[in-house]
Amino acid sequence: MSKTIPYKIYLEESELPKQWYNVKADMKNKPAPLLNPATKKPVTVEELSHVFCTELAKQELDETNAYIDIPQKILDFYKMYRPAPLVRAYCLEKALDTPAKIYYKFEGNNTSGSHKLNSAIAQAYYAKQQGLKGVTTETGAGQWGTALSMACAYLDLDCQVYMVKCSYEQKPFRREVMRTYGANVTPSPSDTTEVGRKILAEFPGTTGSLGCAISEAVEAATKQEGYRYVLGSVLNQVLIHQSIIGLEAMAACDKYDIKPDTIIGCAGGGSNLGGLISPFMGRKLRGEADYEFIAVEPMSCPSLTRGKYAYDFCDTGKVCPLAKMYTLGSGFIPSANHAGGLRYHGMSSTVSQLYDDGLITARSVEQTSVFAAAQQFAKVEGILPAPESSHAIKVAIDEALKCKETGEEKTILFGLTGTGYFDMVAYQRFNDGTMSDYIPTDEEIAKSLAKLPKMD
Amino acid sequence: MSKTIPYKIYLEESELPKQWYNVKADMKNKPAPLLNPATKKPVTVEELSHVFCTELAKQELDETNAYIDIPQKILDFYKMYRPAPLVRAYCLEKALDTPAKIYYKFEGNNTSGSHKLNSAIAQAYYAKQQGLKGVTTETGAGQWGTALSMACAYLDLDCQVYMVKCSYEQKPFRREVMRTYGANVTPSPSDTTEVGRKILAEFPGTTGSLGCAISEAVEAATKQEGYRYVLGSVLNQVLIHQSIIGLEAMAACDKYDIKPDTIIGCAGGGSNLGGLISPFMGRKLRGEADYEFIAVEPMSCPSLTRGKYAYDFCDTGKVCPLAKMYTLGSGFIPSANHAGGLRYHGMSSTVSQLYDDGLITARSVEQTSVFAAAQQFAKVEGILPAPESSHAIKVAIDEALKCKETGEEKTILFGLTGTGYFDMVAYQRFNDGTMSDYIPTDEEIAKSLAKLPKMD
Repeated sequence: MSKTIPYKIYLEESELPKQWYNVKADMKNKPAPLLNPATKKPVTVEELSHVFCTELAKQELDETNAYIDIPQKILDFYKMYRPAPLVRAYCLEKALDTPAKIYYKFEGNNTSGSHKLNSAIAQAYYAKQQGLKGVTTETGAGQWGTALSMACAYLDLDCQVYMVKCSYEQKPFRREVMRTYGANVTPSPSDTTEVGRKILAEFPGTTGSLGCAISEAVEAATKQEGYRYVLGSVLNQVLIHQSIIGLEAMAACDKYDIKPDTIIGCAGGGSNLGGLISPFMGRKLRGEADYEFIAVEPMSCPSLTRGKYAYDFCDTGKVCPLAKMYTLGSGFIPSANHAGGLRYHGMSSTVSQLYDDGLITARSVEQTSVFAAAQQFAKVEGILPAPESSHAIKVAIDEALKCKETGEEKTILFGLTGTGYFDMVAYQRFNDGTMSDYIPTDEEIAKSLAKLPKMD
Repeated sequence: MSKTIPYKIYLEESELPKQWYNVKADMKNKPAPLLNPATKKPVTVEELSHVFCTELAKQELDETNAYIDIPQKILDFYKMYRPAPLVRAYCLEKALDTPAKIYYKFEGNNTSGSHKLNSAIAQAYYAKQQGLKGVTTETGAGQWGTALSMACAYLDLDCQVYMVKCSYEQKPFRREVMRTYGANVTPSPSDTTEVGRKILAEFPGTTGSLGCAISEAVEAATKQEGYRYVLGSVLNQVLIHQSIIGLEAMAACDKYDIKPDTIIGCAGGGSNLGGLISPFMGRKLRGEADYEFIAVEPMSCPSLTRGKYAYDFCDTGKVCPLAKMYTLGSGFIPSANHAGGLRYHGMSSTVSQLYDDGLITARSVEQTSVFAAAQQFAKVEGILPAPESSHAIKVAIDEALKCKETGEEKTILFGLTGTGYFDMVAYQRFNDGTMSDYIPTDEEIAKSLAKLPKMD
């Protein structure tokens, strides 16, 4: 007889994962290597170590170790806000009148308001271990910057954050949270870096982009003694750290004999999606189980559904290594009327390869429908979701409504990456009925893709 | 041998309380009765039923039933965000280098950001059960209004919130959260009520007060068919609902053989303090255990430490019953430079009686020291606390530092009532160094107390 499934499953401390999972080790087709933009040859750990901490550079290129021990100090920090609960969305199921069983892994119960803290503490830890003074980074919606500020405060590391200008202006309170944790926050593009000044000269009045903030943070890291750059998404190392989401979710499912049919995650750079699905993907790759994986992205920034699988720059300033990924071009900046996050032009190379291999499907959704789903979810499940997370909610609801039509009793699992407390400007637009949708034209995307680096 | 105590104790569903606890049943000296302001005679359930739902009016006056069954629908809602964890503050202990053991009961893991949801769902439930159309209320910092909006959305009840004007202006995002949950929010004092118009005429430019917002909400409830008024603090019924905090905390302590010596709660109207301490107080009253209880209030609104124990109006408009309580006078409004919440002029009559009987002690603290404690806590424990909650943190730290001096291994338990995500205007002032303290003069307090109602 199966155990009674509680409304919320919290794993016991003894059941928590002690290792991260590296899905690349189980992939037959490995992601294409990162390339040095000057030589177009695969980057080495040594080369990456100028930008990243050495240990993280190793994790970035690691294709052989499926499991990586989580250092004790990180496990201790995880205990402060983990385990994250796996929640049965009984109230949503009832409201939708669906035979589907809906579960969500909720990562918002911490001050950063999202899953970002899982990788922030890991990256800060390795920086501290290496004896560095501090780290630099970019932040878009602000969750990553907040997470990094928290991790740095905990470890007594300096933290310099370049915040995408439109978020800096729309989310002054995010800035104050970071400052409360002792971080230094600069709106990007800024005149504090060469690349920032160049972008400002070329595009005066730009509201910024993640790609551009990345360039500034990388420059700031390489020009200061004792600093390295850290990044909250896209990278393989981030997917490794974020595997804690999927590992916990899988342990909770196994404990109660829950077998998800469909696993849904929102996808910007791929950190949450990759983290949530990778342990399940490992089972699929090893032939132990099968799942349908759905990546959900905004229609305004549709890298998987309308981008090209090609080598591209990870940043607008073209200072980072080249990555083969689904991309809209490193110059692509979604319209400022897009409030729903997930604004990055590319996608994790690991997620991109899995998608190209047909192991993941993808959908793009309009932001007004995303906020409507968010509100519906908030009213019945109580949690006010982040706009990013709400992309997954929207598709989870769509899937559950399909089950209502077909009568299928599917088990749906989605990632609820965070809370929307700092997104009330966007919610206000939705509440006022002034929110609109933005879908880039084929011409806009083609124009941006025409600037992909030549790879002959 | 005692069990290993986890970092965070989450009770199992089967261990969750199924009944609330009513401390009045165990009090030898009962709180003085609420009086009808016209007749100066104890109010009856029938009289209270014009303002409150009948079931809540009964709870308000109940002095005999120590335990009250929690209706199943409320238990279901509690499952959405409860149990709240009891957390061992290992990192804070380490940072303070204290031999004290510090625990906190964290009530912030829900969208209202505080413990207020515990009573909001109860009050909304009884309103729905009575067949009402909706409820009216006031909110100060906004947690209560948000909580009520969430509960009303869940039960499909109309929700009208009068929000203290200074909070309405400092916290526009709170308003949007409430609107997202479908509530109607009006800044108070407003011209939508008679009492609001009167206050505006007398004090043009006032930033409002809880007492004044209460008056408006009560008027709105009594003038609309099918509406009742609900209140988030002060009342006996609220303390009954909030006993869930203390009952869970006590169950978690008992499970792991944790014996608190000192129990600390912030005190505005008394909802959190009363809820946290009442089950422990029950044990003390019954001679089963002993604890030191500390109520912490802001120096700018020191009802327990500098107020008078007397009958007073619960609201500025003098429409509510008279309550005997520690009060600064119903016309007392703390300076607008006070950002730390807990602005109510009086104190729960139950808490007041316990304090008058010497069963609780009280301290008042300056807001700059409160924010410094908040920041210290945030950096090591990860949670960004609400200013209100941080009053308890401040005194918990003080007590732990005393233990450091004496070498005493005290066990300290405090209530961490909520998160500060919507208090970043106040945090910004603290970060910028522009926050100041306000301590009312003896003359100010005497002037306000001179207007207490005549009780001959």
